[in-house]
Amino acid sequence: MAEPAPSLRIVIIAPESLTPGPDADAEDLGAAERSRSLRIGLLESGYNIVAVLPSDMFMPERLAQIQPDLIIVDAESQARDTLEHVVMATRDARRPIVLFTDDDDTTNVREAIAAGVSAYVVAGLAPARVKPVLDVAMARFQVEESMRRELADARSQLNDRKVVERAKGLLMHRHGLSEPEAYSRLRKAAMDKGLKLADLSQRMLDAADLLG
Amino acid sequence: MAEPAPSLRIVIIAPESLTPGPDADAEDLGAAERSRSLRIGLLESGYNIVAVLPSDMFMPERLAQIQPDLIIVDAESQARDTLEHVVMATRDARRPIVLFTDDDDTTNVREAIAAGVSAYVVAGLAPARVKPVLDVAMARFQVEESMRRELADARSQLNDRKVVERAKGLLMHRHGLSEPEAYSRLRKAAMDKGLKLADLSQRMLDAADLLG
Repeated sequence: MAEPAPSLRIVIIAPESLTPGPDADAEDLGAAERSRSLRIGLLESGYNIVAVLPSDMFMPERLAQIQPDLIIVDAESQARDTLEHVVMATRDARRPIVLFTDDDDTTNVREAIAAGVSAYVVAGLAPARVKPVLDVAMARFQVEESMRRELADARSQLNDRKVVERAKGLLMHRHGLSEPEAYSRLRKAAMDKGLKLADLSQRMLDAADLLG
Repeated sequence: MAEPAPSLRIVIIAPESLTPGPDADAEDLGAAERSRSLRIGLLESGYNIVAVLPSDMFMPERLAQIQPDLIIVDAESQARDTLEHVVMATRDARRPIVLFTDDDDTTNVREAIAAGVSAYVVAGLAPARVKPVLDVAMARFQVEESMRRELADARSQLNDRKVVERAKGLLMHRHGLSEPEAYSRLRKAAMDKGLKLADLSQRMLDAADLLG
């Protein structure tokens, strides 16, 4: 608690109003109470709640405008739909997503985590525990992002190599070139066109497919 | 609570006794209370605590014998050392690791998560929340394991390709072979020796290094 205030800019996605209507049942009241307690915890820990958004068709655009450091999905039910929208909306600029839910049916949790949820918190949280949970979520997000980048890198390197090898093979076969000759011809063409070797190779393969 | 009892076999690594000595201070008493509450939560949720082990030199061997489904590190301080031991001990047969700590200094959390901690829980937990936390940890572990496997696969495929290409290049250069000739010579040698193409290629490169 004595820590310096984290100045993370947080957006909360909350499908329901904090003020339950006159026909609210005990569950609605509980959810509203939990939402309030979460926001108190955020404010007490020094976080910056820059917006509270409903999960509607405008949400993706507003997230793109706000560019929050972290997104909290505060959902008692239908967490799955809301989560899907948030994941879609942040597909191109990933953000840490923390899900707070009252639903203790954790059968969908694997899906949620695979989709990129950095923390999945069931059944509320004392305000004092909000900060450690968000710290862990941020760290988790960073570690997983770096794993995702490494995986994407390794896959693209592998793919590049395959493409270049296929293009080399095609040249060797069609023009009776040796491997170094085929390679240097590809390399020269890539330099002439200002393309990556793999991109040039892919274009050549595409053209060969078309030309037959 | 109404869920069928999960029959996960859990090992708890706890550095301290549940019974604080006569010179225990408030912190020790708090930690003992938290430990007790955690175990009550585990038992009430139907988990099977198969062993409680201290973090000593026998721990790796005992973990290997017990092969638990999940490891809980219950550490109020020195979590870092204990965690390092557990991570080392499960390096070859990874397990979900859940860390419970009283230390709300989360500066080391990134390291812990990168080392493979599936859930990092600060400052205790109501017994009723133990099951969702462990469910999430199991799901997290499975998702991350599959990412790790994909990454290891992509890297090993990439490495195999590099090795085979280098070996091919060496044969082409030394014996004036064409690329297909070099490839089929490698392939035949690999089949004759019952080796993977990449392993045969690596051996050939190693031998070439030695022979000069």
